[in-house]
Amino acid sequence: MPARIEAVYLVRATAESIAARARAIAVEQSVEMPLSAIEDGRVLREVVGEVRDIADRGDGCFAVRIGLAAETVEGDAGQLLNMAFGNSSLQDDVVLADLVLPEETAALFPGPRHGVAGLRARAGAPRGRALTCSALKPQGMTAPALAALAARLARGGLDFIKDDHGLADQRAAPYARRVAACAAALRAVAAETGRVVAYVPSLSGDLDAMRRQVALARDEGIGTVMLAPMIAGVTSLRALVAAFPDMAFFAHPALGGAARIAPELLIGKLFPWFGADAVIFPTHGGRFGYSAETCRRLAASARGIGAGAVPVPAGGISLARTAELLDFYGPETMLLIGGSLLDAKAGLTAETERFTRAVAAHAYRQEA
Amino acid sequence: MPARIEAVYLVRATAESIAARARAIAVEQSVEMPLSAIEDGRVLREVVGEVRDIADRGDGCFAVRIGLAAETVEGDAGQLLNMAFGNSSLQDDVVLADLVLPEETAALFPGPRHGVAGLRARAGAPRGRALTCSALKPQGMTAPALAALAARLARGGLDFIKDDHGLADQRAAPYARRVAACAAALRAVAAETGRVVAYVPSLSGDLDAMRRQVALARDEGIGTVMLAPMIAGVTSLRALVAAFPDMAFFAHPALGGAARIAPELLIGKLFPWFGADAVIFPTHGGRFGYSAETCRRLAASARGIGAGAVPVPAGGISLARTAELLDFYGPETMLLIGGSLLDAKAGLTAETERFTRAVAAHAYRQEA
Repeated sequence: MPARIEAVYLVRATAESIAARARAIAVEQSVEMPLSAIEDGRVLREVVGEVRDIADRGDGCFAVRIGLAAETVEGDAGQLLNMAFGNSSLQDDVVLADLVLPEETAALFPGPRHGVAGLRARAGAPRGRALTCSALKPQGMTAPALAALAARLARGGLDFIKDDHGLADQRAAPYARRVAACAAALRAVAAETGRVVAYVPSLSGDLDAMRRQVALARDEGIGTVMLAPMIAGVTSLRALVAAFPDMAFFAHPALGGAARIAPELLIGKLFPWFGADAVIFPTHGGRFGYSAETCRRLAASARGIGAGAVPVPAGGISLARTAELLDFYGPETMLLIGGSLLDAKAGLTAETERFTRAVAAHAYRQEA
Repeated sequence: MPARIEAVYLVRATAESIAARARAIAVEQSVEMPLSAIEDGRVLREVVGEVRDIADRGDGCFAVRIGLAAETVEGDAGQLLNMAFGNSSLQDDVVLADLVLPEETAALFPGPRHGVAGLRARAGAPRGRALTCSALKPQGMTAPALAALAARLARGGLDFIKDDHGLADQRAAPYARRVAACAAALRAVAAETGRVVAYVPSLSGDLDAMRRQVALARDEGIGTVMLAPMIAGVTSLRALVAAFPDMAFFAHPALGGAARIAPELLIGKLFPWFGADAVIFPTHGGRFGYSAETCRRLAASARGIGAGAVPVPAGGISLARTAELLDFYGPETMLLIGGSLLDAKAGLTAETERFTRAVAAHAYRQEA
């Protein structure tokens, strides 16, 4: 039996129409042509998608499980998205809810290389407590201004400081100048206070540009970078992970969509499969619409892949929610608080220190 | 006044909440932090997004126009998506409906280089009639079998034969073998019948792989290739367009629906801005949900960019709809019929010839 990837779709349909709709999706996502016109018996048996199960969820949607030939994907990250959801993404009655890989495909997507242990090592963060992260913003500031901000955040004892995902290679703070300035600022803080904070620059542009950017970061002693796989292209993430084995990668969810690919799949599985060591996502209760259950599943899924990707809840978290979120996510997590710290203005370093101390001192209720 | 990109969002909201919601999107898509924490006056004046207009559409949705600083995008295709819809794509009450570029940004996205004239030249197709295209499928067939199919389609007098977008670099028909076989088959048909048909291979993998694939196509005398920008990454499309100035590019819409970007924007504007010479999209009345009005706007928009991208309606078109669709789209169009021709089985060449003759003989009602 040839190996198949199992794709789970949530399909809005009636009980009368769902069987035909499920078969249509199985064809759409495999051979995309009338089965009657296929004369090749092997293709009919081994390549055409097969409907494996249809379950009525009782809410007007059906969960449809379809087996897709692993040979149509092999180890190509773009093909995995293409065969799972390329055309069906254009049909608004379908959501891609989950993917389950057969062994031969899973072996080609081994997941994060560094994961939680590698990220803890980069930040000198002991096991048993969550990691902490904040963000450099707003974009439009100059490189020296961003570096000064990085220093103020670093004095508060964070593990990671990432670029705002809007920071690219713009004139206001070109990548090379920004990275050199921020790295120097953090080295100065480390020399003065002993507090080592890992800077995470954001990559942009095409694969060639991103490769140059990663090399430049490496030359500054930086061990972690960030990109948005849905903007950069998932194949670019894969290519960078392969080209820079010592580098750890944060995945930003920009352009990840809310409605059509389930977040627990896109962010909780696909980004880690493609090599992300940490996955940023908008947590429940913030300014995005993910439910607590979605966030819990996303985090659990990410941790289970490869070396274990670190879930990074974010998206409008205030300091007041630290304890709640730590209990919810547990210590194998990185809390990312950006705007809420920056809002402390002159008190930024003190506010950051309150954040990092709260995380270090937290007694976990083991809710996660 | 610094230049701004105007982004139009459709936002589901109440009359009471829309003003605050619009301001929140303007912040989300620019500085993504509390404005109260921004001390840099230039950033506040020139970088923070500004709400320009809110129009009640009367259907529970508001059209919100937001000015985004062009300096945050410059000429980076990925940044254009990121700043227009990166984070808001994660909020399910927002659709990105349109983008209007200021002059300085438009100059950096000059659009298709070859366009309709270049594609007509490749196919030897006279002005005044629509172009024709079919697709090689199903995937899973061997390279020689696909080449034999290409020859049978070519004898029917098509302008273009493209790979199914599911064809990548799989074992069943590896790219290099497939392209060589199909190109040879079409050369043989041309030598025998005088019918010149342009083969359009589908690119896959990362940017390096796609560059190798384009070079290989060029070595086979091929002048047109296809990729799916939402899977390959829009920056990869831009990089390939820049690296291969003699090559024309088809954009496939796969994964284009996942991010809730209006099709007339994503396919009708963004793909052409990034250099696509032809844009494939699921036409109205087929197995996808686009309306006739959406298709008309998409086509008109694509034609107006750069050298003029050719709209390529597709997605389950039957031969019976040829006249209707030609009247609807007019002659500056490429009709793509795949499965419906293939369903003729032994009569494939004759059915293809019926298609190409119908297109050549059509008297346009000038509906378009």
